[in-house]
Amino acid sequence: MRATIIHAPGDIRVEEVPDPEIRHPTDAIIRTEATCVCGTDLWSYRGIHPVAAPQPIGHEYIGVVEEVGSEVATLRPGQFVIGSFVASDNECEHCRGGYHSACRRRELVTGCQAELVRIPLADGTLVALPEQPGRELYPGLLAVSDVMGTGWYAAVAAEVRPGAVVAVVGDGAVGLCGVIAAKELGAQRIIVMSRNPERQRLALGFGATDLVAERGAAGIAAVRELTAGSGAGSVLECVGTGESLQQALGIVRPGGNIGFVGLPAGVDISGRQLFHSHAGVRGGMAPVRRFLPDLIDRVLGGIIDPGLVFDLVTPLDNVAEAYRAMDARQATKVYLQP
Amino acid sequence: MRATIIHAPGDIRVEEVPDPEIRHPTDAIIRTEATCVCGTDLWSYRGIHPVAAPQPIGHEYIGVVEEVGSEVATLRPGQFVIGSFVASDNECEHCRGGYHSACRRRELVTGCQAELVRIPLADGTLVALPEQPGRELYPGLLAVSDVMGTGWYAAVAAEVRPGAVVAVVGDGAVGLCGVIAAKELGAQRIIVMSRNPERQRLALGFGATDLVAERGAAGIAAVRELTAGSGAGSVLECVGTGESLQQALGIVRPGGNIGFVGLPAGVDISGRQLFHSHAGVRGGMAPVRRFLPDLIDRVLGGIIDPGLVFDLVTPLDNVAEAYRAMDARQATKVYLQP
Repeated sequence: MRATIIHAPGDIRVEEVPDPEIRHPTDAIIRTEATCVCGTDLWSYRGIHPVAAPQPIGHEYIGVVEEVGSEVATLRPGQFVIGSFVASDNECEHCRGGYHSACRRRELVTGCQAELVRIPLADGTLVALPEQPGRELYPGLLAVSDVMGTGWYAAVAAEVRPGAVVAVVGDGAVGLCGVIAAKELGAQRIIVMSRNPERQRLALGFGATDLVAERGAAGIAAVRELTAGSGAGSVLECVGTGESLQQALGIVRPGGNIGFVGLPAGVDISGRQLFHSHAGVRGGMAPVRRFLPDLIDRVLGGIIDPGLVFDLVTPLDNVAEAYRAMDARQATKVYLQP
Repeated sequence: MRATIIHAPGDIRVEEVPDPEIRHPTDAIIRTEATCVCGTDLWSYRGIHPVAAPQPIGHEYIGVVEEVGSEVATLRPGQFVIGSFVASDNECEHCRGGYHSACRRRELVTGCQAELVRIPLADGTLVALPEQPGRELYPGLLAVSDVMGTGWYAAVAAEVRPGAVVAVVGDGAVGLCGVIAAKELGAQRIIVMSRNPERQRLALGFGATDLVAERGAAGIAAVRELTAGSGAGSVLECVGTGESLQQALGIVRPGGNIGFVGLPAGVDISGRQLFHSHAGVRGGMAPVRRFLPDLIDRVLGGIIDPGLVFDLVTPLDNVAEAYRAMDARQATKVYLQP
């Protein structure tokens, strides 16, 4: 099959490799219908994560079951499925508590920018659709497998409730999906921090009510002015830098909540500042599996269309160009057709 | 009147000073029936907080209204009252949201280790009892004004719910009151980290089900073993050091919650660690005013008795001895009779 292999930072290629095989009786092999490039894939591309040897890459996928292991009970070849980037058994106490990304048996799914992928713990990980969806729904369904699920978790972690005043820090694909989530969860006001005209346009289409182009102290002052000095009750922090966390802490209301979904690597939070903010803070790798059935329903029902975050569509063979465009910020998120 | 004045670290005296006066029309003057020494008072006593000039000290009190300012509408002389250490108007949006300690007009109450105290924003700050309580209830009511309210907030911030598995880090007066709160909020299991036999005994009396004497990695391992590897759903962090926060992060379940009520001065929290914990964290100076009516009812009804945290009772004139005993950890909390 053809698969994307990263050889070194900046060196990414589609190559002919052996097809994946069932390794454990709980595995499934799926044939991808669509995949895409994630902001976190750029960590390897940019050399932030070391690339010790050539390796498969990609963790977002929708596809059709090709083969199942002997212990897979709920899936059969031919079914159209969606899964998260974290394989989970959907049975342990952490999964039952809604934290599938902390599953006791979790495994990270990888190698998805390819024609075929092996999915561990298939019964727990994959959600089958009742029937083959129309191709026009593919972008929305693909978004659900990661960025939409992550944006939803940010909103849930920030405890967005009906009538809430919400602020979203970050206008990437996850932040934009966070806007969709806040709107669906009943936010009355959604303030999006963005200075990019195209992303501002998308945010407004998704339900943003206010845009703030300023950053730093000026951005904090602007949000405070918009909220009569109080700050936002729910802040979705969708970047993961020290600056974005400071932004979030600066605009949250006392007693409000911050959901943070970008890994803040190397970032420390001052205990004193967190104490005085009175804010609740919850982050983590999103337990996307928790939200899949609901989000799939919303996409199939035409209620949300997170597929709009894809602003470049290209064949898998052009994967190098896809990475280059995202690295150069010429594309927000690239959809790949295997 | 007689009042406690701290002159320098370690130098604390009861002196004759002028009576306090109404400064603002929203003030009240109360005659203290009881006051006490708080762990945070020791910060000045130990020189952690600088003492630039001799100053009054103490922020816990129960007493009888002596005089009210011209704009005080709901209180009259002779009423028995309890208030928090943060004066608040009980009207602004932060108070209405339950975060009185972030009141837009907040002022810290001080000088309470004295015969008379001026309380700002009296209508918002003070809760009057329907009648004069019996003296046997004074310790419990006094505890409500700070440590019990703070322990309660720790449990609320940690989202203790019926059936919860709770861990309490810190066996001081606040931690012990946190045990009471967890029990009242329906916790099924309450694990208390303590190595002090007297405090262990109190904790068990308040509803603790398990005691863990180990600290650090051994303490984390012990709590994990008690919870079948999962960790506690709610952790009350009642110390405020880097070690205690690490303890809390090490024993919380993915998706669980940490309430932290000790000011972690100079302590940084790793963004990466917080991210991977999937824990919700909320701290801050407790909005005690939110809980006063409910906690007063529980004390008057004999449902809780947080007054048991006082293990030394002494006249106000012996305040220097009270500080010395707490500084030397010979007393958990000292009750002062003006």
